[in-house]
Amino acid sequence: MTGVGLTGAELAELVDALPDGVVATDPDLLGKYRWDRAVDPGAGMPLAAVRAESTEHVQAAVRWAARHRVPVVPRGAGTGLSGGATEVDGGIVLSTERMRAVDVDPLTRIAVAQPGALNAEVKAAAAVHGLWYPPDPSSFEICSIGGNVATNAGGLCCVKYGVTTDYVLGLEVVLADGTAVRLGGPRLKDVAGLSLTKLFVGSEGTLGIVTEATLRLLPAQPPTSTLVATFPTTAAATAAILAITSAMRPAMLELMDQASINAVEDLLTMGLDRSAGALLIARTDSPLAAGEAELRAMVGACEAAGAREVLATDDPAEGEAFVVARRAAITAIERLGTVLLEDVGVPLPRLPELIAGVEAIAAARDVTIAVIAHAGDGNTHPLIVVGPADAGQARRAEVAFGEVMDLAIRLDGTITGEHGVGRLKRPWLVDQIGPDVLDLSLRVKRALDPLGILNPGAVFAAPTEAR
Amino acid sequence: MTGVGLTGAELAELVDALPDGVVATDPDLLGKYRWDRAVDPGAGMPLAAVRAESTEHVQAAVRWAARHRVPVVPRGAGTGLSGGATEVDGGIVLSTERMRAVDVDPLTRIAVAQPGALNAEVKAAAAVHGLWYPPDPSSFEICSIGGNVATNAGGLCCVKYGVTTDYVLGLEVVLADGTAVRLGGPRLKDVAGLSLTKLFVGSEGTLGIVTEATLRLLPAQPPTSTLVATFPTTAAATAAILAITSAMRPAMLELMDQASINAVEDLLTMGLDRSAGALLIARTDSPLAAGEAELRAMVGACEAAGAREVLATDDPAEGEAFVVARRAAITAIERLGTVLLEDVGVPLPRLPELIAGVEAIAAARDVTIAVIAHAGDGNTHPLIVVGPADAGQARRAEVAFGEVMDLAIRLDGTITGEHGVGRLKRPWLVDQIGPDVLDLSLRVKRALDPLGILNPGAVFAAPTEAR
Repeated sequence: MTGVGLTGAELAELVDALPDGVVATDPDLLGKYRWDRAVDPGAGMPLAAVRAESTEHVQAAVRWAARHRVPVVPRGAGTGLSGGATEVDGGIVLSTERMRAVDVDPLTRIAVAQPGALNAEVKAAAAVHGLWYPPDPSSFEICSIGGNVATNAGGLCCVKYGVTTDYVLGLEVVLADGTAVRLGGPRLKDVAGLSLTKLFVGSEGTLGIVTEATLRLLPAQPPTSTLVATFPTTAAATAAILAITSAMRPAMLELMDQASINAVEDLLTMGLDRSAGALLIARTDSPLAAGEAELRAMVGACEAAGAREVLATDDPAEGEAFVVARRAAITAIERLGTVLLEDVGVPLPRLPELIAGVEAIAAARDVTIAVIAHAGDGNTHPLIVVGPADAGQARRAEVAFGEVMDLAIRLDGTITGEHGVGRLKRPWLVDQIGPDVLDLSLRVKRALDPLGILNPGAVFAAPTEAR
Repeated sequence: MTGVGLTGAELAELVDALPDGVVATDPDLLGKYRWDRAVDPGAGMPLAAVRAESTEHVQAAVRWAARHRVPVVPRGAGTGLSGGATEVDGGIVLSTERMRAVDVDPLTRIAVAQPGALNAEVKAAAAVHGLWYPPDPSSFEICSIGGNVATNAGGLCCVKYGVTTDYVLGLEVVLADGTAVRLGGPRLKDVAGLSLTKLFVGSEGTLGIVTEATLRLLPAQPPTSTLVATFPTTAAATAAILAITSAMRPAMLELMDQASINAVEDLLTMGLDRSAGALLIARTDSPLAAGEAELRAMVGACEAAGAREVLATDDPAEGEAFVVARRAAITAIERLGTVLLEDVGVPLPRLPELIAGVEAIAAARDVTIAVIAHAGDGNTHPLIVVGPADAGQARRAEVAFGEVMDLAIRLDGTITGEHGVGRLKRPWLVDQIGPDVLDLSLRVKRALDPLGILNPGAVFAAPTEAR
C-alpha cells in the first residue's frame, strides 16, 4: 500500500477534481499535517493535503484515492493523542478543518455539526438556545467534533453524562469507495437496521470519513458546586472516590497526583498544596437542596478517607479555577520534558491497584510518571516524562509505556479509555481484545474498506500489499 | 437455505452433542416456539429446540448448524413484537430461557446477566444493593435481557435515562462459526478497537448470539413525583409535551389517546376520563425542591396547553397506578381484537403531525388505531385493531400498517423506535435507510455470517440458496 509511485499526471487528476486551493501540495504546508499532538516519530510525508469544504470534496478525494489505491488519513483539528492522524508516506491528508458549520434545532434539541467544528463551537451554538452539548475533552477549546466522533472522546463530565457516542444520533459518512451515506438521524430512539452509527463512532477513520454529525443536546447544565480535597496519599484519595461513586453520580470526579499538582503549580501559581499526595476535584450539578446534600456527602466521604483539607464552593468562578488547573495538567507536565501519554482505564474498584502499579513501574524504570485521572470512571492518564537529551531514560520510558498498558490489561482494564488506539498503542490492542476479536474487527474493516486505503496503520496493521 | 433435507443421523448428531433434555424434537413442544408475541402468520416449524444451559451449549449447537447450514433462530422470552423470533421451517430454535443467572458487583456497579434473565430479575438483583438498571420496556416483568440487547429495547424512563445500548458495557457473543468472543467489559470507558459491543446491540440475532451481558447500573432512582393530565385533544397534549421537553428532562413522559384510555378503563376500571382526547403521564425524579420545581413547571405547561384536569402527586403508590394503566394499554387494546402493533418514531417537533396523520389513516381505512406513546422521545405505538372475523377490515388494517410506516419515513422518522425490524417490518427497512445503507449493512452481515444461518429473514431478506 503506497502512493509513492503515483505519476504527476495522477496527482494532477486530484488537483483538477477539486476547486482551487482545496488541494495543497507545497511541501512546507504539507509538513504541518504530518503529526497530530502525539508527534509520532514514525510519521511519513503526504503527497497532498485535501482541505475539503464539503461532503462532495471528500467524496471526490476518496474516489480518486480508491482509483489509485492511495492511503487517506482523515484529520480533524490535529489534537489527537494516539497518532490516529499520523501521516503516511505517499498518502493524502483529508482535512476537515474548513468544514465548520454548526446548526442547532432547539425544538428537536439537536446540533448538526460539520466535522471541523470545534467541540467548544458546538457547546457555544447550543448555549445560545439554553442547551448543552456535554462531552468535554480537556482539549474542548481546540479539538474538533469530527475527531471526537472518530475517537469516541470522553472528558470530565462523562462520569455522569456519558461519552461522545451517547450523544451521536446520526452521521453522514463517506465510505471507502466515495459513496456518502446517512446513518441514524434526528430521532431520539431508532432501532431500524444495524447500529452502524455506533460502529462508526470510535472507528478512528478506518471505516469511513465523518462529514456531518447529528448530536443530541440537553437542557443547560444547572449551576454546579465544586469540592477540592487534598489527601496525604493517592490511596486515601481513591478510597474517597470509591465511597463517592457508590453513593451518588457526581458530575465530575477528577484526580491529580503529587507530580501533577506540582507541575500545575509551577505553571499557574495558584497556591496548591505541593506536599499533598493527591488532589481530588468533585462536582455536583444537582440543583438546590439536592446539590447541597450531595456536596455534604462528598465532603463527608473525603474526610472519612483522611483528607487533609476539604474546600467546597458553590461560587462558579472559584469552582472553575480548580477545573482549569486540572485541564492545564497535560500542558504543565509537557513543560518538564517529552511526554508519553497513557490513557489506561480499569474497573473502578481496581483503580487503587492501577495507581499503585504505575508508581511501582515509575520506580523500577527510574522515570517520572505523573498521574491525572477521570477517576470517577476509572480512566487514568499516566504521563511518562522524558527529560531532554537523556537517551537512556527515553528507552526506559518506552518500556514503562508498554508496562503500564500491560498492567491495565492484567487488571481487566483497557489500553485506551478515550484517546483511541491510533498508531502508538496498536501493538497492545491484541493483548487486550484477543486474536478472535481482532479477527472479527478485521472482517468488518475489510468488508467496509476492501482496498485498505482508510487510515492504514491506525488501530490495525496496514495492509502490506503495494499498489 | 433450509434444513428440511437433514437426515435423522444429522439431527441425532445435535442431540448427541448436548446433555439430555437440552435438545427437544417433540412436535408438541416445538409448537410453542414457533411464534413470539407478534404471532407472525408466516411462521415455520423448527426441527429442534435447543434450550441451552451454557455458552458451551450455544457453541455446540451453532457449530452443528454451521456444519449442516441449518438456520438458527435465537430466542429469549418470546415477548418480541416484530417477529424477530418467528421460527423458520427446517431451522432450530436457540432458546436462552434456561440461562438466567444474574450477578451484581456493587462496587464496579455492574450486573453480569445471562441472556435468559428477565429484565425484572436484573432490576431486582441490582435493587438488593441499592442500585438500579434503568431500561424498562412495558414488558419488563416478562421480557429477557437477551431480547432487550437484541432489539436495543427502550421503555418509559428512556426519555431521561437512555435505551439498552447505553447500559451495555460488554457482551459475550457466540459467532456464526461457534466461536465465543468477549466484547467490551466492566469498564465505564473503553475505546480500544471498533465498537463491536454497540454493533451487536440491536442486531436482532443476525450477527451472533448473546450469551452474557455486562450491564452498567446506577444508584437507585430517587423518589418520583408523577403528574397526570387530561386534554381535550391529542394536539393539546403534544403542545404540552413540546413545552416540557424544551425546558427540562422528565423521567417519564407518556401519552395515551382516547381509544387507549377507554380500553384501559374497560380493563382496569380506575375512573379514567373516557371523554378525554388524550392523557399525559409525566414524572420527575429530581430530588427535593428541584423535583417540586420541575413538577410545578410541568403542571404549568399542561395548563397552558389547555389541559382539562391536572393531578400531581408525590405519593409513590398513587403515581405508580397511572403508570400501571399505561403499561396495561397494549394488553387492554388486544382485548378489542387482533392488533397490528406499530413502533414508529419521529423527531420530536413532528409528533403532532405523526399523530394527526395516524388519525387520518385510521379514518381513511376505516379501522380503529389506538395510540400510546413514549411521547418525550417521539416514539409512538399506534395499535391497529382488527375485529374478529372481518376479512375486509383485516386487509384494510394491513394497508394501514404500511401507511403508518410510510408516514413516519416521510416525517424523517423511523419504522421502529424500540421493538426492532424483525420479520414484520422488513419490507419497509430499505425505504427508511436507503439502498446504500442496506448494502453497507449486508456487507457487515455477510462478513460476520457468511453462510447466512443466523436468524435468516429477520431484518434482512433470507439468503435464497438452499443447502
